[in-house]
Amino acid sequence: MSGTKPRLRVAMVGYGFMGAAHSQGWRVAPRFFELDAEPELTVIVGRDAARVEAAREKFGWMRAETDWRRVVEDSAIDVVDICSPGDSHAEIAIAALDAGKHVLCEKPLANTVEEAERMVAAAERAAARGIRSMVGFSYRRVPAIGFARALIADGRLGDIRQTRAEYLQDWLVDENGPMTWRLDKSQAGSGSLGDIGAHAIDMIQYLTGTTVEAVSGTLATFVTERPLLGESRGLSGTASAERGRVTVDDAAWFTGRLAGGAIGSFEATRYATGRKNAFRIEISGNRGAIAFDLESMNELQFYDATAPAGERGFTRILVTEPEHPYMANWWPTGHLIGYEHAFAHEVRDFVDDITAGRDPVPSFADGLQVQRVLEAVELSAANGSAWTETGGAR
Amino acid sequence: MSGTKPRLRVAMVGYGFMGAAHSQGWRVAPRFFELDAEPELTVIVGRDAARVEAAREKFGWMRAETDWRRVVEDSAIDVVDICSPGDSHAEIAIAALDAGKHVLCEKPLANTVEEAERMVAAAERAAARGIRSMVGFSYRRVPAIGFARALIADGRLGDIRQTRAEYLQDWLVDENGPMTWRLDKSQAGSGSLGDIGAHAIDMIQYLTGTTVEAVSGTLATFVTERPLLGESRGLSGTASAERGRVTVDDAAWFTGRLAGGAIGSFEATRYATGRKNAFRIEISGNRGAIAFDLESMNELQFYDATAPAGERGFTRILVTEPEHPYMANWWPTGHLIGYEHAFAHEVRDFVDDITAGRDPVPSFADGLQVQRVLEAVELSAANGSAWTETGGAR
Amino acid sequence: MSGTKPRLRVAMVGYGFMGAAHSQGWRVAPRFFELDAEPELTVIVGRDAARVEAAREKFGWMRAETDWRRVVEDSAIDVVDICSPGDSHAEIAIAALDAGKHVLCEKPLANTVEEAERMVAAAERAAARGIRSMVGFSYRRVPAIGFARALIADGRLGDIRQTRAEYLQDWLVDENGPMTWRLDKSQAGSGSLGDIGAHAIDMIQYLTGTTVEAVSGTLATFVTERPLLGESRGLSGTASAERGRVTVDDAAWFTGRLAGGAIGSFEATRYATGRKNAFRIEISGNRGAIAFDLESMNELQFYDATAPAGERGFTRILVTEPEHPYMANWWPTGHLIGYEHAFAHEVRDFVDDITAGRDPVPSFADGLQVQRVLEAVELSAANGSAWTETGGAR
Amino acid sequence: MSGTKPRLRVAMVGYGFMGAAHSQGWRVAPRFFELDAEPELTVIVGRDAARVEAAREKFGWMRAETDWRRVVEDSAIDVVDICSPGDSHAEIAIAALDAGKHVLCEKPLANTVEEAERMVAAAERAAARGIRSMVGFSYRRVPAIGFARALIADGRLGDIRQTRAEYLQDWLVDENGPMTWRLDKSQAGSGSLGDIGAHAIDMIQYLTGTTVEAVSGTLATFVTERPLLGESRGLSGTASAERGRVTVDDAAWFTGRLAGGAIGSFEATRYATGRKNAFRIEISGNRGAIAFDLESMNELQFYDATAPAGERGFTRILVTEPEHPYMANWWPTGHLIGYEHAFAHEVRDFVDDITAGRDPVPSFADGLQVQRVLEAVELSAANGSAWTETGGAR
Repeated sequence: MSGTKPRLRVAMVGYGFMGAAHSQGWRVAPRFFELDAEPELTVIVGRDAARVEAAREKFGWMRAETDWRRVVEDSAIDVVDICSPGDSHAEIAIAALDAGKHVLCEKPLANTVEEAERMVAAAERAAARGIRSMVGFSYRRVPAIGFARALIADGRLGDIRQTRAEYLQDWLVDENGPMTWRLDKSQAGSGSLGDIGAHAIDMIQYLTGTTVEAVSGTLATFVTERPLLGESRGLSGTASAERGRVTVDDAAWFTGRLAGGAIGSFEATRYATGRKNAFRIEISGNRGAIAFDLESMNELQFYDATAPAGERGFTRILVTEPEHPYMANWWPTGHLIGYEHAFAHEVRDFVDDITAGRDPVPSFADGLQVQRVLEAVELSAANGSAWTETGGAR
Repeated sequence: MSGTKPRLRVAMVGYGFMGAAHSQGWRVAPRFFELDAEPELTVIVGRDAARVEAAREKFGWMRAETDWRRVVEDSAIDVVDICSPGDSHAEIAIAALDAGKHVLCEKPLANTVEEAERMVAAAERAAARGIRSMVGFSYRRVPAIGFARALIADGRLGDIRQTRAEYLQDWLVDENGPMTWRLDKSQAGSGSLGDIGAHAIDMIQYLTGTTVEAVSGTLATFVTERPLLGESRGLSGTASAERGRVTVDDAAWFTGRLAGGAIGSFEATRYATGRKNAFRIEISGNRGAIAFDLESMNELQFYDATAPAGERGFTRILVTEPEHPYMANWWPTGHLIGYEHAFAHEVRDFVDDITAGRDPVPSFADGLQVQRVLEAVELSAANGSAWTETGGAR
Repeated sequence: MSGTKPRLRVAMVGYGFMGAAHSQGWRVAPRFFELDAEPELTVIVGRDAARVEAAREKFGWMRAETDWRRVVEDSAIDVVDICSPGDSHAEIAIAALDAGKHVLCEKPLANTVEEAERMVAAAERAAARGIRSMVGFSYRRVPAIGFARALIADGRLGDIRQTRAEYLQDWLVDENGPMTWRLDKSQAGSGSLGDIGAHAIDMIQYLTGTTVEAVSGTLATFVTERPLLGESRGLSGTASAERGRVTVDDAAWFTGRLAGGAIGSFEATRYATGRKNAFRIEISGNRGAIAFDLESMNELQFYDATAPAGERGFTRILVTEPEHPYMANWWPTGHLIGYEHAFAHEVRDFVDDITAGRDPVPSFADGLQVQRVLEAVELSAANGSAWTETGGAR
Repeated sequence: MSGTKPRLRVAMVGYGFMGAAHSQGWRVAPRFFELDAEPELTVIVGRDAARVEAAREKFGWMRAETDWRRVVEDSAIDVVDICSPGDSHAEIAIAALDAGKHVLCEKPLANTVEEAERMVAAAERAAARGIRSMVGFSYRRVPAIGFARALIADGRLGDIRQTRAEYLQDWLVDENGPMTWRLDKSQAGSGSLGDIGAHAIDMIQYLTGTTVEAVSGTLATFVTERPLLGESRGLSGTASAERGRVTVDDAAWFTGRLAGGAIGSFEATRYATGRKNAFRIEISGNRGAIAFDLESMNELQFYDATAPAGERGFTRILVTEPEHPYMANWWPTGHLIGYEHAFAHEVRDFVDDITAGRDPVPSFADGLQVQRVLEAVELSAANGSAWTETGGAR
């Protein structure tokens, strides 16, 4: 809005759920945070001309485009924000980085370790030229999570021995729910493991400041066939008598050895009846512990084991104080923020990093590390849950 | 953004906390809801030219103005949104309505019953000409509250006997906190009673679909003198040795008789140590009960007294389902919304009412009713807590 | 069980709900606490010979008796424990004290201030001769409450400004529930006010270490007629077409001025749908706050306003540590206790006081003070909620 | 107490934590439940004459004995209640059963599968002669658990797909805490796995009505050396510079395949900082779910997936209604019970089974099944977490 600030012209590829969330992030961040560049919602990209035009109007972008290659080639674009399905990430991100665009890429970074490795290589080449890249594990930007990270980094939990991450949803509980592309391995790559388990892995690695070195994992598919919809790939329409084969995991469990000696337990499931988006995290050390549930995302539970014995307990911190990450820019104490605020924070940090010339986190390398853990879990599960290294040697 | 939709050109008066929240409402509502007119953030109004210009840039308005009278006279303006202090509401709202502008006025409607009555008269004159007015009790638009209202309207609580509304904050707990204009009756009109007690009154009247007919009330000021700041009216600066006199209530308690025979208890305080924005509501009937806390605004507790005896209990409903008010337009199940979403909902409803030619609620008359209860509480408190009618005869 | 310890021979008058709880207290206390005298469940007293014999067997007393005067005259009795209805307390307690028996009297101390005053006089006469008396406000002996009292006494809450006590039950919600003696003023004396409101008053006075000096109160009866049972005074039997008149309060609300300047709000109701025994307490000071709910009686919520800003919040203390009152004698950390444990604690303290030659608390004078507040609330309610002194001059 | 009821003369072996809990169960059960035989606390048995005499007096038994063989041979004893360490269970239980005594044996049934198998054989021989045996998984008798079992048996959860059981304690968090016999495999047999993991296994098998058929498990010991106390086996005394080797697991994780196709995840740990006795259970089916935490043992969370979409949520059932298992015999609605009440329920059921001539549950065979799962977890953990059958073929 100000004539003095440089503009940052953004092209966003994709217009589904993540497109809506990212659009809101780009729109809102500059209204609440002081940015050194003003993001401009320049162009939205999607293959279907009619749909992308509808998304353009709904999400408030200036123009629509059907070929991502054109925005990559467009010298008027500064940033490419990739919200398209995982199998398209590598190609778009590498092209955009090589063309000198800063890239924000939704998680998971890619569908395979090999793709992710090529993306990291492209990101490193680009960084050498001052081009920035970030993978969108947006939950790192939930203030309660940022505050938990600060407590841990300050040593308030002491030596961490155990972590517990459970990402619980229940949208597959009904066995007559329809077959969708998300349940077809050839299209989705993975089931709950890659979709929500990836968040769990990134979160534990982020909060503990370490990596998962080896895993023993189990995958299960509870409902192996589901009714096909008339429209084969969508979620709407009427169920037919025909049934399709579910080829991804419904739920995943794994135990991981963290660098430093802690043991983490992980679960990702779409069958946790009654849990809608319950991403629950607990981290225990010899000086304290934290607990978090995304269904109460404005709260952090903190246990200080160094308090007087009679006064110990989990403190419910309402993470709405000016002292908490990002919160000074929102509302007065006690006023909550919602899911999409994490995207405004992501935009804030990404723009700050671009204008300050810093490499953002989580980096593509961080995204690759998650990919390696995912792959190791699949290998372990296919091998009778045998312990499997996550390929740190690579 | 669409060329086909009519625009709704908005002028917003005021640029404090409420200005930020309303700006976000106007900006975001059309991106998530299908509106029949596209709001345009046309002009922001404030007395201080430099400050209003800074607010214009920060909040993203097209131009700034220092005299509200000019926007009232401006034929290019469709809506006047009043976020300025309460003592200015009546003059601006009446002028705007008389000039044919739709008016959204922040709560409380006015500082006195007399002002509120003149505003209602203006609103009624305007309504006869198709001009709409609404008072901004935005908490009615929290989805959990809207859903509670629906349960009550459907008879799920049966005959309501008791209501309990406690609006608890703690920002005055420190007795060395500074004197501010909010603690000076000549400027603020009232203390916790008018500021947050007004929300409690509107909420109970809304949820029960009835009115408070008589009250017995008590007001207290715990800290009667506070250090003056160098800058006498602001919150920043260093405290001086000089002290100012607190002339408003720190806390208010009252019992109210509701039309229909229920009894409500009310509390509003800024001394509830540890409660940041805990607006807690409980309503009990012979068939069920609800409980709500604004600090967990995405949750509604519902007790169904008609369930089998062994299965009764308060159900924590995570109010994020498509079946819940407003929520189908936001994120998937289990993803939370925040404080300012209520303002997007307010804008959605106000715009819908304008385009559909309906009178919005809460109306100015609803705002006047709250004012009458506030006045009765003050009278009762000044009269030894004697029961005082709220002037329903008027 | 040990031959060396003196016995303390107890006579208990009454065998209803409180008789069961007191019997358990006398039986269990010596098994978990080191007492200097061994209580003996010597005689249980009730007017109906068959019923008292059944109670004797069920509760495990050595013999039964139908006339309380005989146990008062019996030199083999050391303690009289009064669990009979409130209108019998004064006569029995005064006779027992005058006969040199230690007396434990259930709350409320009496049905009137006049009776309570005579009981206090008798207790004072007895104390001069080394005879002890205690009124049974057993909730003082819930460990979480004892720990809260210790925090407050240590100044951890600082200057207390507000208290909030709500005793919520719902057993009258069904308007077709039967008429019982508890709803008849001539028999019960009072409704929810005297029954559960008395607990609220004692608790706030105990926790704050102060007294309620004046009140403004309101009483309400929501259902004024209820079906009479065939058996007029019992709870069982079939409802008839005939209806009886409810002459006590269903719910009571009052605001009280505490010595020292704090304001307390109080509510007692049997119409809080879904709340079974929710005795909720909140106390706020300028350095901290506590919150408690009897439905989660092993937990205390403590807010330390002196903690670093970002780390403040209510800490859920699971009150099961050896550092907490009474808990070292029960189970390992994390194992809960129940309702009746408070009676074992009451017996422990009463026996300790007797053997150590100390006057117990709460004393009959404490019970009288509660009675004065109850009376003032009734006077205020009858007088349009006018502020009424609690008779501190007496 | 009644002359007409037969007596049931009990000998209890052991006088530690479990001895205290069982004593309370035997003492209290007949005071709250109608039993057809009156238990008599006849004799308490322990090897150390002075200690067992002190325990006799403290716990209220009639006489003390130092050799369990004498009570097994004593024709005046009807019941042997075994609370001694696990390595003594088999010998005592088999001798007692063969001598015609009913046997209640604390969990875990034995330290090895082989011992447990011999105990089951003895129990089967005894059952043929009308002699009863029960293993003391007392948490089955927590009312909230019994009610959960009833809901599941009634099909309210539908087809169960997932279970989650986490038994979390934190008493080993301090790495300078002393070495004790519980951390020495030669004495304790196992660490957290056998101690609290056994509860988790029994609970899931009980609630689902099925068995764990195969497991993949991991064990970890975080602190491998701890200071030795002057007194080598006790918990008291001062720590020396000498250190002992911890040879049991500090924490255990395993995934189990349940008969019927559900997958269960299990965790048992003594390093869950801030969790004191948090035995947390979640069971998810296609029609509903339950959640439970032993730290809030009077509550059951129940989710009914068949409720209207907008009204679904976890209902916090306060399990204190007469409709709930065992609760009609305790206090009015809303009054909590504690940890040891489960032992009174255990006694009630055991005595009822004896007098009615029924075989109690959980049986020794149920205890053996738990033992088999424990063994399979240890085998799996020793074998790189490979999936291991629990020996259902036996």
